[in-house]
Amino acid sequence: MSELEELTTRMRGFVRARDWEQFHTPKNLAMALAGEVGELVAELQWLTPAEASEVMADPEAAGRLRSEIGDVTLYLVRLADTLGIDLVAAANTKLDESDRRYTVEGYRGSARKAPPLV
Amino acid sequence: MSELEELTTRMRGFVRARDWEQFHTPKNLAMALAGEVGELVAELQWLTPAEASEVMADPEAAGRLRSEIGDVTLYLVRLADTLGIDLVAAANTKLDESDRRYTVEGYRGSARKAPPLV
Amino acid sequence: MSELEELTTRMRGFVRARDWEQFHTPKNLAMALAGEVGELVAELQWLTPAEASEVMADPEAAGRLRSEIGDVTLYLVRLADTLGIDLVAAANTKLDESDRRYTVEGYRGSARKAPPLV
Amino acid sequence: MSELEELTTRMRGFVRARDWEQFHTPKNLAMALAGEVGELVAELQWLTPAEASEVMADPEAAGRLRSEIGDVTLYLVRLADTLGIDLVAAANTKLDESDRRYTVEGYRGSARKAPPLV
Repeated sequence: MSELEELTTRMRGFVRARDWEQFHTPKNLAMALAGEVGELVAELQWLTPAEASEVMADPEAAGRLRSEIGDVTLYLVRLADTLGIDLVAAANTKLDESDRRYTVEGYRGSARKAPPLV
Repeated sequence: MSELEELTTRMRGFVRARDWEQFHTPKNLAMALAGEVGELVAELQWLTPAEASEVMADPEAAGRLRSEIGDVTLYLVRLADTLGIDLVAAANTKLDESDRRYTVEGYRGSARKAPPLV
Repeated sequence: MSELEELTTRMRGFVRARDWEQFHTPKNLAMALAGEVGELVAELQWLTPAEASEVMADPEAAGRLRSEIGDVTLYLVRLADTLGIDLVAAANTKLDESDRRYTVEGYRGSARKAPPLV
Repeated sequence: MSELEELTTRMRGFVRARDWEQFHTPKNLAMALAGEVGELVAELQWLTPAEASEVMADPEAAGRLRSEIGDVTLYLVRLADTLGIDLVAAANTKLDESDRRYTVEGYRGSARKAPPLV
């Protein structure tokens, strides 16, 4: 079992032990995910680009970012599990599409079209 | 190498081939993550709780949710990689804390205190 | 001067007195707005629809919602001012479009097409 | 009646004519707000700070930003109306607090403590 599968299984047990499945509806989990992403964004909002690039050198800021990324991951994994979606497979499918759409020749170094991954 | 590590590595190659590292700053990636989470939330916003619980039975809606969850995953994995954060380790650390804070005895079935994972 | 114009002017003075214009770039303010909306969403995430409809009857929850809506408003007003956008004019333009697109005859009571305002 | 009150009243009529009150629950409107803020953030995500400061000089980008800010405003006004919250009063209350907490002497030009409005 991969470490992502182990995390998914661990969360199922955590939720079941507390009888919290009733709260973990798709809408509620999507809201919780949006809330945690808001906290992650807030950690970076006032930094200059240069400060943000060095943010992990500050142990306190690094700890907060690790904590917020952990929270976002927990809710994303839980939402995907609830919906029966394989996170990594879904991501690879989207990256396949981006690989075809954003050809290396057409988009190298270019922000002309916003350079999304997706 | 786990499938999550493979995805991380694949994205590095995708970005490097297009010379997009210059756009993938922590602030920009956090904004992209917020944008994709917004799209994911939007897929569920007008559904009743009952409809949302059955949403994966509708092939079109299921496809859109898979796509949005794929996008969110790509930017989360990319942001974590840029910051040097191990997603799954960060999530397990947070779940350890929740396990201690939200005891089974104290929080079973209770929304008294919002039942977060985190 | 309308109360919205007064608020906009008041915020300009608040920011100028602290020499914070340097932090109030469009990107930073958009991130701050996303962060505050995340906090607002988090206030409602674990409530059932019935509980959420009655949430203002609970003085503590009502106070938190008022506070979060105040924060979202401050950053939205500030971002619009920084960009030179008239909030209410922009909203009325979008509502004009929705009025034409979502005809009363075609969309009454229908969630067939997601019933957006916009 | 202020232009904000007129907008609030206009939206009530728009929603009532389509029998959409049933969809405009606090949770759904908060989700819609998060979705629209995600679209607004996405407009700015790949711009450099310098590009973002000049973004309104580009008529197409300016039009998109006006449109997204209009959407965010509509849902914020509608959510506040549904909850019975006066947007501008709530914002002024928060700005009163920030005025006391972030003294001009203590915070001028300083990002030491993140320089929030709120």
